Amino acid sequence: MTYCLGIVTQSGFVVAADSRTNAGVDYISTYQKLFDFSEPGQRVILLCTSGNLAITQAVVNMLNRDLKLGECESFHTLPTLYDAACYVGEKIRHIQERERPWLERDKIDFSCNCLLAGQFQGEPPELYLIYRQGNCIQATPETPFLQIGETKYGKPILDRILSYDTSVEDAAKCALLSIDSTMKSNISVGPPIDLVMYRTDSFKVGDRLRLGQDDPYLVEIRKQWEISLRQAFDQMPPIEWMGL
Amino acid sequence: MTYCLGIVTQSGFVVAADSRTNAGVDYISTYQKLFDFSEPGQRVILLCTSGNLAITQAVVNMLNRDLKLGECESFHTLPTLYDAACYVGEKIRHIQERERPWLERDKIDFSCNCLLAGQFQGEPPELYLIYRQGNCIQATPETPFLQIGETKYGKPILDRILSYDTSVEDAAKCALLSIDSTMKSNISVGPPIDLVMYRTDSFKVGDRLRLGQDDPYLVEIRKQWEISLRQAFDQMPPIEWMGL
Repeated sequence: MTYCLGIVTQSGFVVAADSRTNAGVDYISTYQKLFDFSEPGQRVILLCTSGNLAITQAVVNMLNRDLKLGECESFHTLPTLYDAACYVGEKIRHIQERERPWLERDKIDFSCNCLLAGQFQGEPPELYLIYRQGNCIQATPETPFLQIGETKYGKPILDRILSYDTSVEDAAKCALLSIDSTMKSNISVGPPIDLVMYRTDSFKVGDRLRLGQDDPYLVEIRKQWEISLRQAFDQMPPIEWMGL
Repeated sequence: MTYCLGIVTQSGFVVAADSRTNAGVDYISTYQKLFDFSEPGQRVILLCTSGNLAITQAVVNMLNRDLKLGECESFHTLPTLYDAACYVGEKIRHIQERERPWLERDKIDFSCNCLLAGQFQGEPPELYLIYRQGNCIQATPETPFLQIGETKYGKPILDRILSYDTSVEDAAKCALLSIDSTMKSNISVGPPIDLVMYRTDSFKVGDRLRLGQDDPYLVEIRKQWEISLRQAFDQMPPIEWMGL
């Protein structure tokens, strides 16, 4: 499985992804799921992928290929992030069309979902979730985060902490805790964690992190969070039972 | 959907359930999912159900019917909770056998999972999860909680707080927070929350609660938990970014 999330706030956006891939429990490996297609100064484009690894790698390969061959349609020629999201959707459709009959007859899951976050010159920062069917939805001030993959374990912390007014630094911390909570509860999501924080109108990916299992910062926040949660729990008022 | 959980600790057990049932988003109703089959002084038996409502109600009806008709096999004649779990499994198998062909051909989900917690005279308190296939697993000191229904949102808090040494009072608080977190993140889980706490060797269900949406205690712990979580979050050390 996989867990990726994106958060867009009034001051920027955050994208984060784990790196675990598993084909059954006896074939667990590490693959990067967060990709940077930015053109510094012009456009910032971050892509996260989840789903069938052969499909998601094919999509990323085709996106890179268009850039390399200077195709007229590529991440560096499209005018808006919405166009880029539709373009990713077209790639997903193309690959799925090609692979689907072969995978479907062996009952192999061929799903592929993507998050696309970025900012183009003259546009605000945006965040899209692109479905396996190639269509997409956009994060809004009312719903400032989008998730793909193993999304449920890490949602409560986002629901409690995040809003569109959250600082981008706090959004990054919250993303990290959301992934760490998921890793604790589900073995199919695992390190290293890739994290990128982007500030509106900077047009460069200035702040990024890759945190391995034993990274001192990850160990520290995990320990602190456990202690703080325990304290919060201990402060909860006792239950007043109704009796029989 | 539904969310029920059971926790067994060295000093007793806790069972908790929400009360929301939905057949699509336009037919949401309230049904009790926690049932008490205890015979005070002799045996304590609590059952939680999730899945297709017609199936789970049929199972509960058959369990009650056996008691009412004084059948030789019933919750009040079986010698151990393990036998009771197998007996529930037999009922599930019987009902599913009867209903399955009719539901399957209309692609209606006929799943049914149960939690069974209790203590029989001469036995320790135990907790079982009975699958739709009628087989069951038991909670152990290493894995002291079992969940059915919409289980993922509420698992991180259990993973962080619970162990077999947790007091049964803390286990009850933890169960409440686990359900409340799930209700906040998933609209298919809803109040009232039914909660039962049982102390080893008491052989009666002394402590129980039914908390509605606006119950003052639920409102209070929800508010306190949000404040405490926010404080815990604010105490987290800032991220040290790697830069480019």
